[in-house]
Amino acid sequence: MNPIGVFDSGFGGLTVARAILDQLPNEDMIYLGDTARAPYGTKSLPQVREYSLECLDYLADQEVKALVIACNSASSAVLRDARERYDVPVIDVILPSAKRAASQTRNGRVGVICTQATATSASYDDALDAVPGIDLVTATCPAFVEYVEAGITSGTELMQVARDYLLPLREADIDTLILGCTHYPLLQGIISYIMGEDVSLVSSAEECAKETYAQLTDLGLLSDAKTSTRRFLTTGAPEPFEGIGLRLLGGFVSEVEQLYTLS
Amino acid sequence: MNPIGVFDSGFGGLTVARAILDQLPNEDMIYLGDTARAPYGTKSLPQVREYSLECLDYLADQEVKALVIACNSASSAVLRDARERYDVPVIDVILPSAKRAASQTRNGRVGVICTQATATSASYDDALDAVPGIDLVTATCPAFVEYVEAGITSGTELMQVARDYLLPLREADIDTLILGCTHYPLLQGIISYIMGEDVSLVSSAEECAKETYAQLTDLGLLSDAKTSTRRFLTTGAPEPFEGIGLRLLGGFVSEVEQLYTLS
Repeated sequence: MNPIGVFDSGFGGLTVARAILDQLPNEDMIYLGDTARAPYGTKSLPQVREYSLECLDYLADQEVKALVIACNSASSAVLRDARERYDVPVIDVILPSAKRAASQTRNGRVGVICTQATATSASYDDALDAVPGIDLVTATCPAFVEYVEAGITSGTELMQVARDYLLPLREADIDTLILGCTHYPLLQGIISYIMGEDVSLVSSAEECAKETYAQLTDLGLLSDAKTSTRRFLTTGAPEPFEGIGLRLLGGFVSEVEQLYTLS
Repeated sequence: MNPIGVFDSGFGGLTVARAILDQLPNEDMIYLGDTARAPYGTKSLPQVREYSLECLDYLADQEVKALVIACNSASSAVLRDARERYDVPVIDVILPSAKRAASQTRNGRVGVICTQATATSASYDDALDAVPGIDLVTATCPAFVEYVEAGITSGTELMQVARDYLLPLREADIDTLILGCTHYPLLQGIISYIMGEDVSLVSSAEECAKETYAQLTDLGLLSDAKTSTRRFLTTGAPEPFEGIGLRLLGGFVSEVEQLYTLS
């Protein structure tokens, strides 16, 4: 069976990759992180679209059986183009999370935290627009990615930053919060601590993994192999990729290969 | 700072350990899996209590700053004894999951899937008993653990087994399903596929990790170290522990030490 292709601007998509391999440990996977041009979250949509299609083209050339866009900023920019461009199923992180939040909220007040690019695209607003009785409140949390990649997930400084970011969401009385950036599942502890017991978190990584499982099952594309291979490709230097991968996900990532053809 | 002690009957608690280290990567941790006497899920409560206290005593002797009972069967049997017995905070997997489900359900119909020991203990019923308007439906899924440990998370055979196990929950019209065994987060894909989009899953691993984060934060017990150590102890053979750890959690577990003093 051909591998699943997973694409992210950098490291955050590793949470998606891991969630998929948790559920489907026997699948082959190729992960491509465009670290040389990351972060995408501060770039314009046309720019993000151009970079994303280059990366997805590369994965499609590896004959992947499905493409997972494991990056909210890229999903916002490129999902529709990707669906048209490739013959394999394309799974994003935004639609599965929005669906889960819509199904889960009790008071109809849903929050999303994300990068500036995702917020500007209004992708979550669009995904929830047709759902009756949903109010969406968006907050950008630009510094969260840096904290996660530095391995800082607690402490006085981050607590204050997080309280400031999340204040509008607390004041909006949301009961469901979408973690609309694939780095944020690694901050669930502090986010849940600040938001309180009455707010349920929706992880775009977990929901994307469930959607991947469902689509591959429905299409009869699951592998029945007993072993699997995982390749990690990066457009930047492999060492920081492995280092941050190890810091983020405790040994999940190894033997990262540098890719020179893009960037 | 002293380490966090995490105890499980075997491997399943690794999902809890990983969820904690995702949120708190700079904490030291000692994980003890009583694999020589696992599974606990088929044993009597007094038996589970005796084994669990031996293991928790061992961890307490290592001067852990908190004890996490990362096993639903053990949490059912021993939480109250452990609270009385140790001076450090004791965090279980049942209460955080029950609290999340109670906060999250919209129609008041909650399901839990678990081992026979957890079902017999009625711990989830007790945890939700005082919540107005909640109906709890329990289903045991004895074969799930074996499938997970064999790395089987999809395919025709498991699909049929899972459909049979989950049928009473589908018929009960639940909207929230507690994964009341620490192996089950690794079956979220198939469970979500069968239960459908309208049912939200609550992972006892994730909720326990959030509770650990919150309690250590409130008690001022978080480490501000920049590096951390992780020890994995087992009462059984180290090789299968590493093997299953690798299969379950892709490289998270390494250098497992065998412990001869128990069992």
